[in-house]
Amino acid sequence: MMGYGLIAVTDKKVTLIEMNTLKPGKVDDTYKRLQLIYNTVSGLIVKHKPDVFAIEAPFFGKNVQSMLKLGRAQGVAIAAAMRHGLEVTEYSPKKIKQSITGNGNASKEQVLKMLQRILVFEETPAYLDASDALAVALCHHYQENALLPKTTKKSTGWGDFIKNNRERVKL
Amino acid sequence: MMGYGLIAVTDKKVTLIEMNTLKPGKVDDTYKRLQLIYNTVSGLIVKHKPDVFAIEAPFFGKNVQSMLKLGRAQGVAIAAAMRHGLEVTEYSPKKIKQSITGNGNASKEQVLKMLQRILVFEETPAYLDASDALAVALCHHYQENALLPKTTKKSTGWGDFIKNNRERVKL
Repeated sequence: MMGYGLIAVTDKKVTLIEMNTLKPGKVDDTYKRLQLIYNTVSGLIVKHKPDVFAIEAPFFGKNVQSMLKLGRAQGVAIAAAMRHGLEVTEYSPKKIKQSITGNGNASKEQVLKMLQRILVFEETPAYLDASDALAVALCHHYQENALLPKTTKKSTGWGDFIKNNRERVKL
Repeated sequence: MMGYGLIAVTDKKVTLIEMNTLKPGKVDDTYKRLQLIYNTVSGLIVKHKPDVFAIEAPFFGKNVQSMLKLGRAQGVAIAAAMRHGLEVTEYSPKKIKQSITGNGNASKEQVLKMLQRILVFEETPAYLDASDALAVALCHHYQENALLPKTTKKSTGWGDFIKNNRERVKL
């Protein structure tokens, strides 16, 4: 299961563009799964023309095999982003939760609730990997705003793939 | 450190085309490293027009962080291969060593010695990750030959990236 979320930043207003999950596990062959991830990420980039791609970089995993699989999935998503000239960046799960909820150990439900409040939507995604992904996008937006001089920006952002991406489009 | 090796298969003769290593660790930024891997793999594919790409799939790793990094590196290499329409396949380290030396626990030096004998070359690569990669290519060739009907084949093969790739070109 991998989630993705895209946000738009226009002036100081951040809005939700799209969030969803991909279930590459439904595809039998390992490489067809990776192809599906590559094609989906490429498709989203072509559609929304974001300019940043942010992913989650976990520090712990169930085991080395699951981390290898996660890494490969992230790798093909990163390749798709790089090929389209996007800036690629990453955040730890703790940093993401901290920046959205103020609590680095927040639950997925708490993250969703804060996102609904901040981005003003009521929808609850079928899988919370989608909202977790969206959190990565918003985390990157906050991070950038903290670092950059306050200027008027017009952009679209996206978050998460296999836990995050985030891009912004020059509109 | 990642190795790659390419072989050519013409009729029943297998020959070495190229083997080498990449030191993406020399590049500071994580994403520049991944970009270097993507560009190098793409360049080799364009140059040699192989038709199969084989990688090593380790079952054990030092820790989950190193496996995530390995997975990402393999992921971008796989994306480059997929984008060029190559068949992608993988072998376990044990299977590779077994197929080259007859011993699944052979050392890198033993693998190199057998490769020098089979592919008839005297060169010792600066890093044995290059010959390990070459072993993946040859392993795939043996595997295919064991499965396919005995026909006259003309092809080029390549092996390993981050421990293996392998491709064959329709010449």
